[in-house]
Amino acid sequence: MICMKKNRMVVMFMYVIDINADIGESFGTFKVGDDKRLIPYITSANIACGYHAGDHVVMDETIKLAKSYGVGIGAHPGYRDIYGFGRKKMDIPAEEIYQMIVYQIGAIQAMCHINDVKLIHVKPHGALYNEASVNREVARAIARAINDIDNNLILFALAGSELAYAGQELGLQVAQEAFADRMYTDKGTLVSRNEAHAVLHDEKKVEEQVLHIIEKQEVITETGNVLPMKAETLCFHGDNKNAIQLIKHIQSCLVAADISIKNVGG
Amino acid sequence: MICMKKNRMVVMFMYVIDINADIGESFGTFKVGDDKRLIPYITSANIACGYHAGDHVVMDETIKLAKSYGVGIGAHPGYRDIYGFGRKKMDIPAEEIYQMIVYQIGAIQAMCHINDVKLIHVKPHGALYNEASVNREVARAIARAINDIDNNLILFALAGSELAYAGQELGLQVAQEAFADRMYTDKGTLVSRNEAHAVLHDEKKVEEQVLHIIEKQEVITETGNVLPMKAETLCFHGDNKNAIQLIKHIQSCLVAADISIKNVGG
Amino acid sequence: MICMKKNRMVVMFMYVIDINADIGESFGTFKVGDDKRLIPYITSANIACGYHAGDHVVMDETIKLAKSYGVGIGAHPGYRDIYGFGRKKMDIPAEEIYQMIVYQIGAIQAMCHINDVKLIHVKPHGALYNEASVNREVARAIARAINDIDNNLILFALAGSELAYAGQELGLQVAQEAFADRMYTDKGTLVSRNEAHAVLHDEKKVEEQVLHIIEKQEVITETGNVLPMKAETLCFHGDNKNAIQLIKHIQSCLVAADISIKNVGG
Amino acid sequence: MICMKKNRMVVMFMYVIDINADIGESFGTFKVGDDKRLIPYITSANIACGYHAGDHVVMDETIKLAKSYGVGIGAHPGYRDIYGFGRKKMDIPAEEIYQMIVYQIGAIQAMCHINDVKLIHVKPHGALYNEASVNREVARAIARAINDIDNNLILFALAGSELAYAGQELGLQVAQEAFADRMYTDKGTLVSRNEAHAVLHDEKKVEEQVLHIIEKQEVITETGNVLPMKAETLCFHGDNKNAIQLIKHIQSCLVAADISIKNVGG
Repeated sequence: MICMKKNRMVVMFMYVIDINADIGESFGTFKVGDDKRLIPYITSANIACGYHAGDHVVMDETIKLAKSYGVGIGAHPGYRDIYGFGRKKMDIPAEEIYQMIVYQIGAIQAMCHINDVKLIHVKPHGALYNEASVNREVARAIARAINDIDNNLILFALAGSELAYAGQELGLQVAQEAFADRMYTDKGTLVSRNEAHAVLHDEKKVEEQVLHIIEKQEVITETGNVLPMKAETLCFHGDNKNAIQLIKHIQSCLVAADISIKNVGG
Repeated sequence: MICMKKNRMVVMFMYVIDINADIGESFGTFKVGDDKRLIPYITSANIACGYHAGDHVVMDETIKLAKSYGVGIGAHPGYRDIYGFGRKKMDIPAEEIYQMIVYQIGAIQAMCHINDVKLIHVKPHGALYNEASVNREVARAIARAINDIDNNLILFALAGSELAYAGQELGLQVAQEAFADRMYTDKGTLVSRNEAHAVLHDEKKVEEQVLHIIEKQEVITETGNVLPMKAETLCFHGDNKNAIQLIKHIQSCLVAADISIKNVGG
Repeated sequence: MICMKKNRMVVMFMYVIDINADIGESFGTFKVGDDKRLIPYITSANIACGYHAGDHVVMDETIKLAKSYGVGIGAHPGYRDIYGFGRKKMDIPAEEIYQMIVYQIGAIQAMCHINDVKLIHVKPHGALYNEASVNREVARAIARAINDIDNNLILFALAGSELAYAGQELGLQVAQEAFADRMYTDKGTLVSRNEAHAVLHDEKKVEEQVLHIIEKQEVITETGNVLPMKAETLCFHGDNKNAIQLIKHIQSCLVAADISIKNVGG
Repeated sequence: MICMKKNRMVVMFMYVIDINADIGESFGTFKVGDDKRLIPYITSANIACGYHAGDHVVMDETIKLAKSYGVGIGAHPGYRDIYGFGRKKMDIPAEEIYQMIVYQIGAIQAMCHINDVKLIHVKPHGALYNEASVNREVARAIARAINDIDNNLILFALAGSELAYAGQELGLQVAQEAFADRMYTDKGTLVSRNEAHAVLHDEKKVEEQVLHIIEKQEVITETGNVLPMKAETLCFHGDNKNAIQLIKHIQSCLVAADISIKNVGG
C-alpha cells in the first residue's frame, strides 16, 4: 500500500488480488474436495464442465454454491478423460481442442443462465492447462474458442505463458495467474510435481512467495533467480488436507498487508 | 390443398409439413448413419449432444452440414448412456433430467453460436422421448429446461403426449410430431418395436399414413380405429438401409399432393 | 457356544461367522473408502471389477492388500455404470447379465492369478444385488455365470433370496448373507434406504441384531415380527464415517460371545 | 514350395502362413466391420476386450462366431479409450500397462471358458501395438503380463519389433507379424498413415509383397531397399470396403502358390 498525503487529501493505491480454486470436481457418487468449506475463502471458482470431472448435477449445485457466496464463476474445461481426471497429456489436434472448449463452455453457460448468474472467466484444467502454457497452437485454439463464444470472458492463464499471449493477441482480458504454493523454474513454468521441491509445504514460504509476487511483481525461482511476474489471480488447491488452513492463513496475511482480495472481473 | 375462388381472388390453403430426422449420431471413430445422403431430404435435424451419441467434433461438423443445406437445427438430448445409445430407460429424478437437458442444450447452443446459426428446436431422444411422452414429471422437467434456457425454442413432442402438454402449459411453441412408418395404438402411442407390426415396411402403407395424417388430421391405429392427430412435423429414421429411398418417395408424394415441406420454425 | 460334557470328553459347538465388506471401489483418481483401515476387521473382501467402480490398478492393489491380511477375495460385479456407481436399476436381459458377470469375474480371476491368490467368492453389487434378490431370471443368470466359470466359487446372496435359491439350484456353495445395520421387512428384504428407519444407527441395536441372527438364526423385522434367518456372512459398509468404529465394536461383541470370525471359504 | 525327389519318395516343404484380422470391434449399438463376411477368410481372430472396443455381448458373440469357423481366438487388448478407439497414444506407466493387459486377457479368457474354447494368442491393439513395437518398457510389460497369465499364449508382434524381442526374452512363442497392404520403412516399421504411400491400394502390389515376404522372407521398403522379414502371420484389415475382396484375392494367390494357410497355434 502506498499512501500519498497532499494537504488533506489522501490518495491510496492498494494492491488487489483475486484468489481462485478448482471446485465442482466430484463426479456422480465420487466425491472430490470440500467445496462448502473452501468457497468462503476464494473470489473465483473454476468449475469442472463434465469432461475431466463434474457432471450436470454437480455443476448446477456448484454454481448455486458459488453464487450464494458472490464468488466469480468460471469454466474449467479439460480433456475428455474422467478416468485420468484430465491429468494425462493427450495428443489432440488444435481444431478438436477448439471444439472441446466450445462444448464445455456452452454447457456451463446454460447452467449459469438458468441460475441467473454470469460466467466470468475460463481456466483450462490440468494437462490441458500445462499444454496450453507452452504449445502455441493449443493456446490459440483455446483463446479462439473463448473469443468466439463470448469475448467478455476473462482468460485465466499462467503468467507469461503462451496461453496468456494467445489471449492478448485476440484482445481478450487475460488474468495472469500465479501459484501460491508451487516452486517456479527460471523459465517461469512450474517445477514438475515429479520433483521433490515442486510444492512449498512451509506456510511461511508460501506467505513470502505470495507477498513477493503481489508487492514486488517478482518471484524467486528454484535457483534463487528473480523473475518478473505480474499476477492478477492466485491459484490455491482445495483438494488436500491442509488447503483450507493454508488459504485462511494467506488471506489473513493479505489483509494484514492491506492487499485487497477481490474478483478479477468485479 | 383447398382453393376458394371469389371473384378474381384465389385464396389457397396449403398443407405444410416439416420433416425431421436424427443425425450426428456418430461417436468418435464409431460411425452411425449416412448424414450427407440424408440431409437434402429433411427440413429439421435433431442433432445428438454427446450424452447418448455425438461428440464435440461430430456436433460441429453436423451443424455445418445442416447449415449448408438450410436445415433447421435442433438439440437431440438423451440419457447419459453412450453404450446403450440412450435407448435404455433410466430411473432418473425429474430435477436431474432438468439439469441433463440444460447441459446438453447449452453445449449445442455454443456450437451453433460459433457457426453463426440459430438453434431452432429441441427433441428428446430414445428412451427419454418415450418416457417424456407418458410421464408428466419427466415431461415437465424437459419443458421447464427448454423454457428456462430460451423460450423461443420449439419443442418437438409426440402428438398428444404428456410432453406436448407440458410444453403448451409453459407457453412454448410445440411441434406435434407424427411417425411416418410406425403403427399407432388406440392410445396414440407407438406400437412397441417388440411387436411384429410396429413398423410399416410397405412404402405404399407409409404413404397412405402420411397423407392421412396431413390431410385428414387423423391416423388409423393398429385395431383399425380412427384417431385424431394433428402433426406439424413428420419423423423419419435415417439409420436403416431403405431410409433414403423411403424418404425420397414420400417427398415426391407430398409434392404431388401439393403439400409444402418446410421447417417448422421457418 | 454349547458345551456338552460326557465323561471326560468336551464337545464344543461354536458359532462361526464371516464378515464381508465392499472394498476397492475407487476409480482412477477418485478415491472411495479407506480400505487400509477397514481390511483388518473383515474376513471377506468384495472387490469391484471395473464396471461400477474399480479399475485394473485399483483391483491389483486391493487384491494385494487383501492377500497381505489373509482376507478372502471375492468378485463384486455390478452394472456397467461408473457414473451411477451401479446403484441405478437397469433393465438388462438375463443373457446379457450372464455375459456381464462372466466378463467381470474373468478380469478379477486373472488379477488373482498374477498375485498367486485364489478367488473365493462372488457377490453382486448394488442395484444388481437387489434385482437378483427378487428377480428369478436375473438370479439364475448370475448363478449360471458363476457355475460356468468355476463351480467352486461361493455365491454371497441375501439370506432367503432368489439369488440364494438360484445358487443352490445349481449346486453352488451359497453363503447366506445378513446385514448388520439394516432393518428388515417382514418379507426378509431390506427396508428401502428411502425410509427413515432403514439403517440402525444405534451401536447397541446393531449388536443385538447381529447376535440375534447368529445365535438364534432369527431376525426381528420392522414390525416386530420374528423371521427365521440363517446367515453365514455379515455385511458391513465401509464407506461411512463410523464404519470402522462400528465394525470394531461388533467384533469385540462377537469375541466376547465366543463367536468365531472366519472366512466362509476357509 | 520346394520338392525333392529321391527315388520314389517325394519330400515336400510347404510354406505356411496364418492370416489374422481384428474383429469384434463393435460397441453397444455402434457397429464396426462385417465380421460374418470376414471370418471365413482368416485363421486368427484378434478380439477386442472392452477397453478400446467390444463389450461383454460383442465378445461372447464374436467368440462363438470364431469358434464356429474353427478360427484361432486371440485377445486384442488396447488402451482404455472407447472414444478414441485406442488409436491415441497414451502416456501410461509400464506397471499400469501390465495391469491393463491382465484385466483384458482375464475377461476374454473367461468368455472363452464358458464357450469351451481356448484362447490362443494375444495381439495388442492400435496405439498400444505401435508403442510396444518401439518402447522396450511397454513391450516388456505386455510380454510379462501374458507370461504371468498363461505362458502358452502366443504373442503376435510386429516382425523384428521390441515386442517380439520382449516375448522371446521371456520364452513366449512369438508369431512375427507382417502387414499385407502396408508399406514398410527401412527400419522395418510401418510407414505412418499420415503419408500418402502408407497403404498399398493396388491388389497386385499387395500380392507381390505378400508372396515376397512368405517365399523370400524379405520385404521391399519404401526406398526400394530389401529388408529381411520372417513372418508367421499376416495382418489384414477388415474395416474397409474392399477388405473382403482383397483378402479373398490374396487367399487365392496363396493357394495357387501352394502356400498353406493355417492357424499359427494349430
